[in-house]
Amino acid sequence: MGKTNPGRFFEDYRLGDVIRHAVPRTVAEGERALYHALYPARHALYSSDEFASACGLEGSPLDDLLAFHVVFGKTVPDVSLNAVANLGYAQGRWIRPVYPGDTLRSESEVIGLKQNSNGKSGVVYVRTRGFNQMDEVVLDYVRWVMVRKRDLDAPAPETVIPELAQVVAPDDLVIPEGLTFENYDFELAGEPHRWGDYEIGEKIDHVDGVTIEEAEHMIATRLWQNTAKVHFDATFREDGRRLIYGGHVISMARALSFNGLANAQMIVALNGGAHANPCFAGDTIKVWSEVLDKAETGVPDIGAIRLRLVATKQGAGEFAYKGADGKYLPEVLLDLDYWALMPI
Amino acid sequence: MGKTNPGRFFEDYRLGDVIRHAVPRTVAEGERALYHALYPARHALYSSDEFASACGLEGSPLDDLLAFHVVFGKTVPDVSLNAVANLGYAQGRWIRPVYPGDTLRSESEVIGLKQNSNGKSGVVYVRTRGFNQMDEVVLDYVRWVMVRKRDLDAPAPETVIPELAQVVAPDDLVIPEGLTFENYDFELAGEPHRWGDYEIGEKIDHVDGVTIEEAEHMIATRLWQNTAKVHFDATFREDGRRLIYGGHVISMARALSFNGLANAQMIVALNGGAHANPCFAGDTIKVWSEVLDKAETGVPDIGAIRLRLVATKQGAGEFAYKGADGKYLPEVLLDLDYWALMPI
Amino acid sequence: MGKTNPGRFFEDYRLGDVIRHAVPRTVAEGERALYHALYPARHALYSSDEFASACGLEGSPLDDLLAFHVVFGKTVPDVSLNAVANLGYAQGRWIRPVYPGDTLRSESEVIGLKQNSNGKSGVVYVRTRGFNQMDEVVLDYVRWVMVRKRDLDAPAPETVIPELAQVVAPDDLVIPEGLTFENYDFELAGEPHRWGDYEIGEKIDHVDGVTIEEAEHMIATRLWQNTAKVHFDATFREDGRRLIYGGHVISMARALSFNGLANAQMIVALNGGAHANPCFAGDTIKVWSEVLDKAETGVPDIGAIRLRLVATKQGAGEFAYKGADGKYLPEVLLDLDYWALMPI
Repeated sequence: MGKTNPGRFFEDYRLGDVIRHAVPRTVAEGERALYHALYPARHALYSSDEFASACGLEGSPLDDLLAFHVVFGKTVPDVSLNAVANLGYAQGRWIRPVYPGDTLRSESEVIGLKQNSNGKSGVVYVRTRGFNQMDEVVLDYVRWVMVRKRDLDAPAPETVIPELAQVVAPDDLVIPEGLTFENYDFELAGEPHRWGDYEIGEKIDHVDGVTIEEAEHMIATRLWQNTAKVHFDATFREDGRRLIYGGHVISMARALSFNGLANAQMIVALNGGAHANPCFAGDTIKVWSEVLDKAETGVPDIGAIRLRLVATKQGAGEFAYKGADGKYLPEVLLDLDYWALMPI
Repeated sequence: MGKTNPGRFFEDYRLGDVIRHAVPRTVAEGERALYHALYPARHALYSSDEFASACGLEGSPLDDLLAFHVVFGKTVPDVSLNAVANLGYAQGRWIRPVYPGDTLRSESEVIGLKQNSNGKSGVVYVRTRGFNQMDEVVLDYVRWVMVRKRDLDAPAPETVIPELAQVVAPDDLVIPEGLTFENYDFELAGEPHRWGDYEIGEKIDHVDGVTIEEAEHMIATRLWQNTAKVHFDATFREDGRRLIYGGHVISMARALSFNGLANAQMIVALNGGAHANPCFAGDTIKVWSEVLDKAETGVPDIGAIRLRLVATKQGAGEFAYKGADGKYLPEVLLDLDYWALMPI
Repeated sequence: MGKTNPGRFFEDYRLGDVIRHAVPRTVAEGERALYHALYPARHALYSSDEFASACGLEGSPLDDLLAFHVVFGKTVPDVSLNAVANLGYAQGRWIRPVYPGDTLRSESEVIGLKQNSNGKSGVVYVRTRGFNQMDEVVLDYVRWVMVRKRDLDAPAPETVIPELAQVVAPDDLVIPEGLTFENYDFELAGEPHRWGDYEIGEKIDHVDGVTIEEAEHMIATRLWQNTAKVHFDATFREDGRRLIYGGHVISMARALSFNGLANAQMIVALNGGAHANPCFAGDTIKVWSEVLDKAETGVPDIGAIRLRLVATKQGAGEFAYKGADGKYLPEVLLDLDYWALMPI
C-alpha cells in the first residue's frame, strides 16, 4: 500500500507548485523506427537525414509528436493518474528539434485551480515543459484536466483560471535555427503543393484509413512510458475494453494527413485540441483537415499554415464534425488545431 | 480532392518515363531490430557485427529483404495505387549491402506497356532501382502490375513487352566487395551444411510455422512506408479483411527457411516470384525449399545456390505446389525463385 | 529431413559437453526501444543515459532481462527443442552490463543428467554463460529441463545431480565497476523509497495490470531469437493456443513491479524461478513482491534486496501464491526469486 504511487488528488495541488517528473528518457534510432512502424509517418524531414540536411538541419529530427508524447507521458503519474477527463491543450510550442541520442525530461507548473461546484473534483491547469540533456526547453504546452478529490472535506483552493490564448500568435512561432526550404525538393517530399497553393477555408479529405489494433496502441503508449491502467488492463473498465491513449489517435491522424499535406513538414504550435469521443481497438480512423489560417514567418521561404485536423471513425460522413447542437458528432474522435511550417 | 494523390492510371504511363519516388528514408539500428522482431530472422551475417566482420564486411548489413521492402515501398504511390494485381518480378539483383545509417530512395523507369483486350486496364512494366545517399545503386529489379484505366476512351499505347530473363545468369550475380567465407564459423552460423552438401532437386521441409497477426503485418508494412489502403483499412474490402502485403509473406518465408538453409546467407538475385494466393491474419505460414541450381561465383569459397521458396498455409500437404491443371494449389501463398550465397 | 535441426534428445547429452550456441547477436538502440515498447519498463538507469552516467556507468545499459533473454534464446535450439518442461533456474548472476553495440553469444556446459524412472525422458542440467564481443562473461545461470528420449532403448547415463545453491550468497553478487548511488536522484527515479525503507517480509501489491496480446509476445520472443514452435504456431497445440514464452511473463512482471520498487534498479542475481502455470493471450497480468532478504554489498551507498516476484492472472486473490497443498494456485503464472541493487 504505502510503496506504490496513489497519484495526486485535487487537493494535493498548490498554485505555483513545480513538479519535476520522473524517469528521463534517452530517445534514439529505435524510437524513430518504431514511430514509423506504428504510424504511416512519411514527412520527408523526419524520414531522411539527407533531406533534413538539405533543409539546414543537422540531421533528421525525431518526429515532433514523438517528442510531445515522451514529454507528456512523464506527466501522467503526477498529473492524470486520478483524472476524470483530459479537458484541453493550449499554447503548445515546439522550441527546439529533438535528435537521436537526446535525453528528455519534463516539469509541470500548476498555473490554475478551480474546484467544481459538486465539491467532488476540480480542474487543474499545468504548464508542462520538456527539456533535453542540456536543460534546453524543447517544447512547452498548457493542459488542463479534471481530477478527483480524495478527501471531499478538503477546503476548496482559491479559484485561479489562467488566461490562455486561443491561438499561438504567428510571431511567437519558433523557426528552428538554420531551417531553410530554399532548396526544398518537392518531388522527394511527395507532393507539389506549396504554402501558396492552400486557401483559408479549404478542406482536404485525406482518404486513407487505418483500423486500430490493441497490440499497436499498447506498444505506442508504453514507448512514451505512459502507464495509465485504462490503456493496458482489459479488466479495468466494466465493458472489458481498453481505452486508446489520445496521443495514439493524434499521431495516427497526423500521419494520415500526409496525403494532401505532405509539405506541412514541421509542427511548431498546438493551439488547442479535444478528444471528442473515445477510441477503441477495431475502430477505423480516417481524417480530414481544414486550413484555418496562414502567416508569414519572417524567414523568406518558410510559411506557417494553421490547420484543423479532425479524426473520425467508421460511419462518419464527409467532413463530419459537429451537430446542430454544437456538439461533436459521435463518430468524431479528435479535433486538433495546430501550426505547421511549409515551403512558400 | 485536388490535393491528395489519386495515383497513376494506365494511360498516365509513357514508355521511357523515369519516376523519382518520394520520401527517402534513413534506415538504422531501429529498423534492424524491428526486422528481427517481426520475422524469425537468424542468418548470422545479419545478426552479428562480429560475424559479418569475420566475413570481410564492414559490419552487419541490414537484411537484403529489408532493403528490398524499403525500395519497393516507395514505388507504391506511383506504381501500384490503382493496381489490380502485382503480376511478377524478374531480374532482381542486390548490388551493394545497405548499412545502418544509409538513406535509401527509389526510381522506376517504365520499360513496357500493354493494354488489355478488355480496354479497361493494362500491364505496366517498370525497372526499379534503389539508391543510397552516395547515389550508388543498392538493388534493382523489374516488376509488372496490372493497372486500371481512369478514362476508358484513352487510346491504347503501342504495345512493348520487355525481354526478361527467366533467371539471372550466375555471371551477373554481384558478390559484395570484400566478402569471404574463408573463415566461416559453421557452428556460430547454426548448421554444418555447406554448398557442396546440397543437391539440385533436393527439397527441404523447413518444419517451423508462424500464425500471422494483424498488428504484425501492419507494423511491418508501415515500416517500409508502403501505405496501400488494402493492408490497413478493414472497411476497404467488402469482406472486412485486410490483405497482407506480399512482402510480409516473403520475409516470413525467408526467415522460416533458416532451419535447413542457415548458411544460404545473402540473397543476391530474385529470378521471379508469384503471390499465388492472398494471405490474411490467422493464417499459419510454413515453408519448403527446392534446390533449383548451383553455380560457382569466381570467389574461391563462395558458392551460389538457386532456390525455390514456397510458402503455404494451414491445410497444405507436404511440398504443396501446383495441381494437375498447372495452377497453384489454394493453400500456396508464395512461389519465390532466388539466388543466395553459401560457403562452399 | 536431413537438413533441419531435429534438436537434441536426452541420450545426446554427455556430462561435461560444452555446446557453443549459434547465431551471435549485436544488440543496440533498436532492441532497447523495443524493450521499452513491449514492457512498461521505467527503471531510470535503463531509460536515461544521463541518469546512468550520474550513477557512474558509461551510459544506459540494455535492460538486464533483455541480456538474459538474448543469451537464453540462443540455447533453445540446442537445449529445449525437445523439452517437455522447463524445470528451474539457479545461481544466475549478471557479471557485466551490456551496452548498445555489444554482440552477445552463448555457451552451455552439461553439468548434470538424470534419466526419469519411466525411461522415456530425463533431466538435463546446463550452466549457460553469455559472452560479449570481448569474450567477457556478461551473465551465467544454471537451468534444468526435462527432455524426451528419441531412442527409448538408449542406455541411461550415470546420474549426476549438481549441487545448486538455493540462493546466490550476497558476497557473490557482482557490483558493476564504477556503479555508485551517491548522487542518486530519487525524484527523477520516480519514488522516494530507499533500501532502508523496505522490511524483510514486507509485501507490495504493484497494482497495475496488462492484458497480453499475441502480436506482442511473438514480437518479443522473436527479438530474442527464441524460435520454439509452441510460441508462434497456432496449429501446433491441439487447443489452437500459442503458449507464451516464460521470459515474456518475467519481463512484464519485472516492469510492472516498478510501481513500488522503482529504485530496485539493477538485477544482479536470479536465485530461482518457476513458471507456475502457462500464460496465454488474453490473460491480464498483475504482480506482487515480497522482500525476502536484505544485504550490504561492500559499496557504501548500494544495498542488495532479495525479492520474490509473483505474477498472477485475472481471478487471483490478493497476494495469491500457493494453496494448502503447497502447490501454486491456478492463477499464479510466475514465481521468481532475485537480488537487485538499491540506493541505501
